[in-house]
Amino acid sequence: MELTILGCYSATPKPKTHPTSQVLSIKNHLFLIDCGEGTQVQLRRCKVNFSRIKHIFISHLHGDHYFGLIGLISTFMLLGREAELNIYGPKGMKEVIMLQLKLGKAWFNYPLNFHELVCKESEVIFEDDKVTVITVPLKHRVYTNGFVFKEKLGERKINIEAVKDNNIDMSYLQKIKQGKDIENNDGKLILNKQITFDPEKPKSYAFCSDTQYYPACIPTIKNVTALYHESSFLDEHEYLCAKTRHSTARQAALIAKEATVDRLILGHYSTRYSSIDKFKTEAKQVFHNVELAEDGKKFII
Amino acid sequence: MELTILGCYSATPKPKTHPTSQVLSIKNHLFLIDCGEGTQVQLRRCKVNFSRIKHIFISHLHGDHYFGLIGLISTFMLLGREAELNIYGPKGMKEVIMLQLKLGKAWFNYPLNFHELVCKESEVIFEDDKVTVITVPLKHRVYTNGFVFKEKLGERKINIEAVKDNNIDMSYLQKIKQGKDIENNDGKLILNKQITFDPEKPKSYAFCSDTQYYPACIPTIKNVTALYHESSFLDEHEYLCAKTRHSTARQAALIAKEATVDRLILGHYSTRYSSIDKFKTEAKQVFHNVELAEDGKKFII
Repeated sequence: MELTILGCYSATPKPKTHPTSQVLSIKNHLFLIDCGEGTQVQLRRCKVNFSRIKHIFISHLHGDHYFGLIGLISTFMLLGREAELNIYGPKGMKEVIMLQLKLGKAWFNYPLNFHELVCKESEVIFEDDKVTVITVPLKHRVYTNGFVFKEKLGERKINIEAVKDNNIDMSYLQKIKQGKDIENNDGKLILNKQITFDPEKPKSYAFCSDTQYYPACIPTIKNVTALYHESSFLDEHEYLCAKTRHSTARQAALIAKEATVDRLILGHYSTRYSSIDKFKTEAKQVFHNVELAEDGKKFII
Repeated sequence: MELTILGCYSATPKPKTHPTSQVLSIKNHLFLIDCGEGTQVQLRRCKVNFSRIKHIFISHLHGDHYFGLIGLISTFMLLGREAELNIYGPKGMKEVIMLQLKLGKAWFNYPLNFHELVCKESEVIFEDDKVTVITVPLKHRVYTNGFVFKEKLGERKINIEAVKDNNIDMSYLQKIKQGKDIENNDGKLILNKQITFDPEKPKSYAFCSDTQYYPACIPTIKNVTALYHESSFLDEHEYLCAKTRHSTARQAALIAKEATVDRLILGHYSTRYSSIDKFKTEAKQVFHNVELAEDGKKFII
């Protein structure tokens, strides 16, 4: 899994700070998560092959998380895209996009599928043979979901020496990977665990932004490999959290700790701070493995 | 008058090319003309004091001319703007903006006035004691207007030597500027033209983008000081104009010539060209005074 941060600042775009957007490369997918104004330019700047994006996940309908969506959709049209595009996000999103396409008399050269979310409980919104995506209901000023992107348990890994030693026909390799026990050339049943290793532990990534400190989300993100959690403020501005429904770095770390995640990535910084170093300092007082998102930075998960 | 080009490329924003937006400083006004995605960042980059913008003119509802508008409106809210904002543009614009503000549960801290345009004839859409703005109906794939920004004829300039020589009381200076004839201290009527100079010739700026070659606009832009006319294509791609309803540089120059403008500024270049020099070369074969818009460039008019 590789996560590319296109933008990780709150509020509005500036020459050096970009609003929320990130790309998650997971199995054969390239998922776009949120799409603030200027995302299409950041995709180009970060050299993402954005024609490969087939699924876009929008957390909520504040501008710094989706004002770049209509531009990206339009650019896909101009570029002659034919592959379908799926967009998952709050109800209302479809009306905004379709109205703008209608006013611009835009033509359609690819299927645009909206999956509007209204549920207040976590739900599966995407699934194939390798990946599952579920929502993480969050608490913000408007209806908001985070998302967990989970790899499925992969095939078992073949212990080729053990296969040979047990006189097994090589035509069974696919079945062995699938976990089947096999009858060998001598007619003896060989148990799968004798000739395979466990698959790699599936990885998972949770995106939680924007939200106030909201421990109710912990069961949904429990034990993820990496958690991106918004941290708009430092401790000194914690008093702003109640009104704006955002979190501090320390609160993000509390969520990470309780959810026993492997690592915490902080982002969605208020642009009032001239340096983001203190976000890490304050979060590390609560949770050991903290990293800072930065525009253009990549994380291997 | 000073014109700042924020973006002058067609299609979608890229790291080095910005879609249409420009700022016209005229008398005490700072007018924003079109507002493609990323305009608010370009305003910051070009160090425009954008809180002074009170009037925004949108030519048409294609994304590269207005997708940045909702972001700018939202930023004004975040910055605590209180001054009213007037937006002039095609019908439909208000619905798009209000829908997005409603979905984001945005609060209003300043009056937002929409002036939706539907007229197919040129009309006055703004006027005060120093400036008039009229529409220039254009021909594009959707309903489109250009705009002419005209200074009004200023007050007459006082010839202070002549005023003294004619024994005129200094309390009449304001009336003299207004063009009045004055009775001097000896009871003699002094004609205004004896004691004043003509005011400076009023300047005017016409913005015409997007449009196909459309000579019907010429009477409306006749004799302007500067004309910005779109030139999406070079001669070699003239065949694309009919379908896309854009112009070549040569066609823009033909309009400039027929309208007997003082100078022509080209822009709205297709991003297919690696250099824009040829736009000037081709236009100059038709019209003598051609300049090229470039992102970030300023023109004193």
